[in-house]
Amino acid sequence: MTDQYVSRQDLDFLIEDWLETSALTLRPRFAEHSVETFRGALDLAAELAVAKFAPHNRTADTQEPCLRDDGTVRLIPEVQVALEAYFASGLHSAPFPEAVGGADLPMTIRTGVGLWFAATNCSTSGYANLTAAAANLLLAHGSTDVINRFARPLIAGRFFGTMCLSETQAGSSLADITTRATRQSDGTYRIHGDKMWISAGDHQMGENIVHLVLARTDRIESGIRGTSLFAVPKYLVGEDGAVGERNDVTLVGLNHKMGNRGTTNTVLSFGSGDHEPGGRPGAVGHLVGEENRGIFHMFHMMNEMRIAVGLSAVGLGSAGYLASLEYARTRRQGRRAPSSEPVPIIEHPDVRRMLLAQKSYVEGGLALVLYCGRLMDDAATEQTAARREDAAALLDLLTPVAKSFPAQWCLVANDLAIQVHGGYGYTRDYPVEQHYRDNRLNLIHEGTHGIQAADLLGRKVRARDGATLARLTELMRSTIGRARNSSSERKQLGAELLRRVERLETTTAAIWQDDDVADPLANATIYLEAFGHVVVAWLWLEQHIATQNRDTDFHSGKRLAARYFFEYELPRTDSQWDVLAQRNTLLQDVEPTWL
Amino acid sequence: MTDQYVSRQDLDFLIEDWLETSALTLRPRFAEHSVETFRGALDLAAELAVAKFAPHNRTADTQEPCLRDDGTVRLIPEVQVALEAYFASGLHSAPFPEAVGGADLPMTIRTGVGLWFAATNCSTSGYANLTAAAANLLLAHGSTDVINRFARPLIAGRFFGTMCLSETQAGSSLADITTRATRQSDGTYRIHGDKMWISAGDHQMGENIVHLVLARTDRIESGIRGTSLFAVPKYLVGEDGAVGERNDVTLVGLNHKMGNRGTTNTVLSFGSGDHEPGGRPGAVGHLVGEENRGIFHMFHMMNEMRIAVGLSAVGLGSAGYLASLEYARTRRQGRRAPSSEPVPIIEHPDVRRMLLAQKSYVEGGLALVLYCGRLMDDAATEQTAARREDAAALLDLLTPVAKSFPAQWCLVANDLAIQVHGGYGYTRDYPVEQHYRDNRLNLIHEGTHGIQAADLLGRKVRARDGATLARLTELMRSTIGRARNSSSERKQLGAELLRRVERLETTTAAIWQDDDVADPLANATIYLEAFGHVVVAWLWLEQHIATQNRDTDFHSGKRLAARYFFEYELPRTDSQWDVLAQRNTLLQDVEPTWL
Repeated sequence: MTDQYVSRQDLDFLIEDWLETSALTLRPRFAEHSVETFRGALDLAAELAVAKFAPHNRTADTQEPCLRDDGTVRLIPEVQVALEAYFASGLHSAPFPEAVGGADLPMTIRTGVGLWFAATNCSTSGYANLTAAAANLLLAHGSTDVINRFARPLIAGRFFGTMCLSETQAGSSLADITTRATRQSDGTYRIHGDKMWISAGDHQMGENIVHLVLARTDRIESGIRGTSLFAVPKYLVGEDGAVGERNDVTLVGLNHKMGNRGTTNTVLSFGSGDHEPGGRPGAVGHLVGEENRGIFHMFHMMNEMRIAVGLSAVGLGSAGYLASLEYARTRRQGRRAPSSEPVPIIEHPDVRRMLLAQKSYVEGGLALVLYCGRLMDDAATEQTAARREDAAALLDLLTPVAKSFPAQWCLVANDLAIQVHGGYGYTRDYPVEQHYRDNRLNLIHEGTHGIQAADLLGRKVRARDGATLARLTELMRSTIGRARNSSSERKQLGAELLRRVERLETTTAAIWQDDDVADPLANATIYLEAFGHVVVAWLWLEQHIATQNRDTDFHSGKRLAARYFFEYELPRTDSQWDVLAQRNTLLQDVEPTWL
Repeated sequence: MTDQYVSRQDLDFLIEDWLETSALTLRPRFAEHSVETFRGALDLAAELAVAKFAPHNRTADTQEPCLRDDGTVRLIPEVQVALEAYFASGLHSAPFPEAVGGADLPMTIRTGVGLWFAATNCSTSGYANLTAAAANLLLAHGSTDVINRFARPLIAGRFFGTMCLSETQAGSSLADITTRATRQSDGTYRIHGDKMWISAGDHQMGENIVHLVLARTDRIESGIRGTSLFAVPKYLVGEDGAVGERNDVTLVGLNHKMGNRGTTNTVLSFGSGDHEPGGRPGAVGHLVGEENRGIFHMFHMMNEMRIAVGLSAVGLGSAGYLASLEYARTRRQGRRAPSSEPVPIIEHPDVRRMLLAQKSYVEGGLALVLYCGRLMDDAATEQTAARREDAAALLDLLTPVAKSFPAQWCLVANDLAIQVHGGYGYTRDYPVEQHYRDNRLNLIHEGTHGIQAADLLGRKVRARDGATLARLTELMRSTIGRARNSSSERKQLGAELLRRVERLETTTAAIWQDDDVADPLANATIYLEAFGHVVVAWLWLEQHIATQNRDTDFHSGKRLAARYFFEYELPRTDSQWDVLAQRNTLLQDVEPTWL
């Protein structure tokens, strides 16, 4: 039943056999945990996701949020029921520290938990992801007052969270935001401005919504550095935590999307004073962290959401893969010989190609986001400061990849899931067309694909003078070394990977050594995509090694998918490295009038 | 205004400068035509498409066809209005011979005409495409009686046509159809069986619908060879052409699709007798061509529809490209220096990449379908029988490519058009998300992508002992020869193409020379995709040559897009040729239980 959405066997393999997550219980922070509590959390997630999230996934698509006459948002009631059950289960608060109401569940396990909700209903789980990420940001950068007033209710599931960065004229270009914040004598601020594309920006669930809003104070610096971050609640919250009257935050409208429809996507106005005809008081906001450091604080939430987007894409890929696998096993069409019976279509090599490709993207993508979960745990709990820093740096480097690889390739997986279904897959009677529409968002929100590319090539691989990238390739070489002392198949895959690791290194160095190039980032997206395939090939080799001495169907399938990725996918990167090595300037040679 | 959907300049360049279509007027069949009548047809198409088809494209999506309580189909009225205007304009009948009510318009021009309707409203134009293809099949294989009774009203736009092949259990596998046809003493047949996925299968437009139905007669041979073809009207038609009472064809239900919603997609029951409680008379059918030759006759229509699918994909690609180009020219975001004004996003290399990729797919795909149109004209009107045969053979070879390249890559174009728009592109306020949903169908209907691949590698490249493929590569070498005596840029592109032509030749030969391989078609889809890129690279080199001595922005853009295709796209094929050359057996090594 539950294998309709997630392969629990794969999740257990990755968490237990590959990442050896049980070792985390030796660290003080996780000392209360055990393999049993980890499995229990995953069991609970599976049960809840299937019982409460999956059943309304299609309904939330066909009956998308709409505006009532009174200006409030109508959601189908199942969304609230599911989220209340989720909050009540303790899964939401579990990853937070005990001191603020959590249970110190490792992020590795939280990632596995999240997979269930992404796979069964990505738009309902979106509300919870934003709430958790908002709480984490406040814990990291908020004052005690802000933590008590906002973070604790977010962790308890009483309040919901949002991130308010974009404006109509400023999507990818956050330097252009114009929302203003004016400091008041009581230390609070008054916010004026409109925000666009705010997911979960309004609804009637919970007691309150906490918007984390990027705005400019009077003491502005120019551009992106002149922004500050504010917690702006929908309903004012007293020092004692009591929820009071409406703040000056107005829902202006809803955006209507191709997919992911269950998550409201809103235009919000702060300080337009519509609800109070007398004046324009401005929305009350509480400064989070320091003035003019807003964008840096916001990155805490953005980075978490980027990995959540990757996980969401993996979840959709997983649901589509398993749906098409089931279809391919039961649908009969075509035959081996004219006189024989029709065979299940999984017998046809082209169908196997489409299934294997999906498996390689989905399980490769899952390994990547779980690895990021582990890096979060290591960044928080490794024994030495140097190791914690190393883990944090590696996580920073891999974040654009953990967002973009699943967003791109698990969408391709959903495309293939439709194709396996043939005409049926194109109808709304089967789930795969919705996966495809839902997943398309993941290349856009939380930083477009191009923004991830610029982040990776422009910042991340150059961080610490390239030391983090060197650390990553060192880890890859270590895996290749282990592969070399193993089966001939693994040795072969290791050799294939090494060739691409070397290309990655030389190409990166060449791009940044040469001062002649007008725009080193011109081909950044090509770089991102080649880089992502090398990272995931590495993780497939890691998985292949983790199957050592195991010969069940499951482990044979793992090895086969690893081979598929190395033989059909990794070679794609060669022509990409060539474009990059040639320093192709074609994209800079364009005159706009030529197009 | 009209450049919102189609670049007329590109269409004129391809039709006049590249294909030199005016030369067709020297052939007797086209003697009544001139450059002016060709341009006039394109002018009329542009005007009509923009005035009558474009305005209801979104409405047909949001208000999709539904069943009324009385079992009839409700379409928005704009569909009928548009099609009546189209039929009245003469554009529908124009490509047919004068003898049956047409005007002998070349198919090259008909393809350009069709582009407008595909770009403005692919689902409404679908009704007309099926009607034209049904008429062409009947003209090619029908008796005089069938032509008079059915083909002439189809050409006149009084009747609509459909193709009824698939059944619930037989989609790609037509050998499994079970619909039966029983011969009556009057020479007609009675049809019993259900057909699935019938586009335009029911509606209230026109006077009648003519279903072309594949069924088995009593004198069946096994498998696909035992099928015969029948014209089965919704309303019986007398010898005198008078439309009479209802035939025993029942609409069972509508399929609800992700996109392309304006075209009804139906389940039809033939001979279920529901409308006549007394008995099960069977649906009256008229044999088309010979018994047991049904599938071969049907290929006449299927081939035409496959190229129509390619054209439809190009039209959607074109509309998306031009929408995103306009958006990129007007949307300002990001800046060259922190203190300067935001620039139109077309200034960013990554946006240019996404625009150039679209241009290369759309204009490359358009060149391909126009070239197929020209081959149709040549197959019908070239001076010698040998040349006509050559053209027909080449058309046969290229048909799976003309279907699959646009279906795959113009969908990628639509994906990039969304990405250029950012969040806006994902909303239903912009047209590009619908293009993407509409276009996704084109990889499925009229033979899935995998079916096209098996057709190309299994049949087409082997036809006439490989002589047709040899003819194609000879044409490519001739182009490369012309490039060599030209600019250094063209010479360079020619050298790049030659390398891939040689790989295509050696790979094809190797696949079919080696008897060891269990399944030579295992990697057929990889082959199809590599083959398609080589064909389109060839056509881009052709276009580059056709810009010789021209230096307008338009011609510079053409050369740039050609370079893009050669530098960023064609190299993708190298790893595909490698997979094929290695005779990778991975897809055959899979045990279904491993997945």
